[in-house]
Amino acid sequence: MTSKIIGVGNYIPSETITNLFFDKHNFINKSGQSLIESNEIIARKLKEITGIEERRYAHNEQVNSDLGLLAAQAAIEDSGIDPETLDYIIFAHNFGDVRFGTIQSDAVPSLASRVKHLLKIKNNFCVAYDVLFGCPGWIEGVIQANAFIKAGIAKRCLVIGAETLSRVVDIHDRDSMIYADGAGAAVLEINNEDDSGIKSHLSASYTLNEKDYLFFGKSYNNESCPSVKYIKMEGRKIYEFALLNVPNAMKKCFDDSGYTIDQLDKIIIHQANEKMDEAIVKRFYQLYDTPMPEDIMPMVISKLGNSSVATIPSLLTMILKDELASHKIKKGDIVLFASVGAGMNINAFVNKF
Amino acid sequence: MTSKIIGVGNYIPSETITNLFFDKHNFINKSGQSLIESNEIIARKLKEITGIEERRYAHNEQVNSDLGLLAAQAAIEDSGIDPETLDYIIFAHNFGDVRFGTIQSDAVPSLASRVKHLLKIKNNFCVAYDVLFGCPGWIEGVIQANAFIKAGIAKRCLVIGAETLSRVVDIHDRDSMIYADGAGAAVLEINNEDDSGIKSHLSASYTLNEKDYLFFGKSYNNESCPSVKYIKMEGRKIYEFALLNVPNAMKKCFDDSGYTIDQLDKIIIHQANEKMDEAIVKRFYQLYDTPMPEDIMPMVISKLGNSSVATIPSLLTMILKDELASHKIKKGDIVLFASVGAGMNINAFVNKF
Repeated sequence: MTSKIIGVGNYIPSETITNLFFDKHNFINKSGQSLIESNEIIARKLKEITGIEERRYAHNEQVNSDLGLLAAQAAIEDSGIDPETLDYIIFAHNFGDVRFGTIQSDAVPSLASRVKHLLKIKNNFCVAYDVLFGCPGWIEGVIQANAFIKAGIAKRCLVIGAETLSRVVDIHDRDSMIYADGAGAAVLEINNEDDSGIKSHLSASYTLNEKDYLFFGKSYNNESCPSVKYIKMEGRKIYEFALLNVPNAMKKCFDDSGYTIDQLDKIIIHQANEKMDEAIVKRFYQLYDTPMPEDIMPMVISKLGNSSVATIPSLLTMILKDELASHKIKKGDIVLFASVGAGMNINAFVNKF
Repeated sequence: MTSKIIGVGNYIPSETITNLFFDKHNFINKSGQSLIESNEIIARKLKEITGIEERRYAHNEQVNSDLGLLAAQAAIEDSGIDPETLDYIIFAHNFGDVRFGTIQSDAVPSLASRVKHLLKIKNNFCVAYDVLFGCPGWIEGVIQANAFIKAGIAKRCLVIGAETLSRVVDIHDRDSMIYADGAGAAVLEINNEDDSGIKSHLSASYTLNEKDYLFFGKSYNNESCPSVKYIKMEGRKIYEFALLNVPNAMKKCFDDSGYTIDQLDKIIIHQANEKMDEAIVKRFYQLYDTPMPEDIMPMVISKLGNSSVATIPSLLTMILKDELASHKIKKGDIVLFASVGAGMNINAFVNKF
């Protein structure tokens, strides 16, 4: 017995933010000094490393749970289920609902409760909770849903990943150009019928030395209020950490699935940084003494940026809805999902479609 | 196979806040009008209804994860385990770390990651995540840990519940006198040896009409900044909701355990409001046509206030550590745990000690 994905959905915010948006920003480094390079050059370098040309932001009137609702509705429609039959609504995020122009996170009631309310679900035994696990939160939600199904306490779970990182960026930090808003969701169901579904999974939390590689810290602008915090990262440390640990974690998870490397059809990896993702996947294949196949790893970061928990379910939806010309997932395909982010957490799962 | 509690711990903040603390507060009602009664009378009435005489606050230098760490260390010591053998650290909270004098919630990295870091755990496969489920979050963490153990993906889990509600109170709202800070934790372990452990559990989310009974809203003082939010509740609605739904949920959970009502030794209920808790338990016994036994329900709210997710594990620790003269739990005792809070969520579990 396992669980399988029976429906997916996403919400791609309609506000396209090009690099021009950042043109007048005064970018400052960690030491409080203005960057010497022009913002045009900064943006070009950013694109070379991360692949990001544009990103999407939510409308000013929307909050994170609104984005999550739209992805949830799409996933429910795609699955064809009656939402009253859901046993769990699991909402992965890290900053709650942050209204435009404010700095407080609001997660009371939980974002899952808000979505359940907006879906008008009457079934009180549909349990709605939020999980915080950094960018890998959506995969962790899937792993938790799978555990509930295996433990016999659920048959159908909706797992949402949504974030509005645009509400927590330091406009003086060039890393702000990386972050985006987005939402994705999937419906998982118990599967006793065929051999499709989740074959293996892995989760890990590296906290001894890595806890603060991604953190909530003050602005690089020393004139800003020091008690107001923004999303901050140690980019170089994250890059090195990810390259050292993610390929091994992916291999351990993939080996646990029982498949051989030539059977792997697709890798859906958290859209954090194109160069980093490519280096991770290349090293993953090196562990099998195998060259990295072309088109194994779909990337949409150039147009969507890094929307944290939302990148993987968003991308999966785009592929399954045939929105990416060069990437398809067909019945029977073996797909490896992997993510890395604040915690520092790493997780992965293998799914047969 | 089930899971059992093998160690507990709490941290009772040392700052005792008597009603005198609120003496100079300008209490205002929902409509923005100052309350006519003196603060002394307000405090006396509050005590009559909720039972609260005093509450505890964290030191100004502490944040919520610091409280959680202290409870976690106590639970690990009590269990006698090597913390490196933990498979999960689950941290239930609702507002993250809010530094004294600031308004932002900080949960990046997760509070579970912070605790794991401070515990100096090297085992990367100990998975650290946070769960948001209102006041019932700690019980929900226990239910999730139990599911992971049943699903075969964990053998030992640390479940922490900690909150610093003092950091999110509206000083113009008399309900601020209810809220407190605190932390409690337990270690759960797989049990194949005897018939002790978790016998049944239940979780429910009432969101259709009840979503905003507990919420994050603006101050009752119309001169305060409207974008700054505080914990708010619809006390009357919560009371009626709880009385209508919690006794039935407790009965369903207890009946699922297979025990008969005369076998029940103790009820550990979320310390939200003494009168409400008494009415809930009385009605629970009415459902069995049985009078409510004396000393079935330990209450410590008079001295500790309502510390959200922390009340149940704090109280359990006090009982197991023989700190309450009139309440004991001995080996073989059947205990029903129950909680209700923001979501609105209700949950319960039955444990044989």
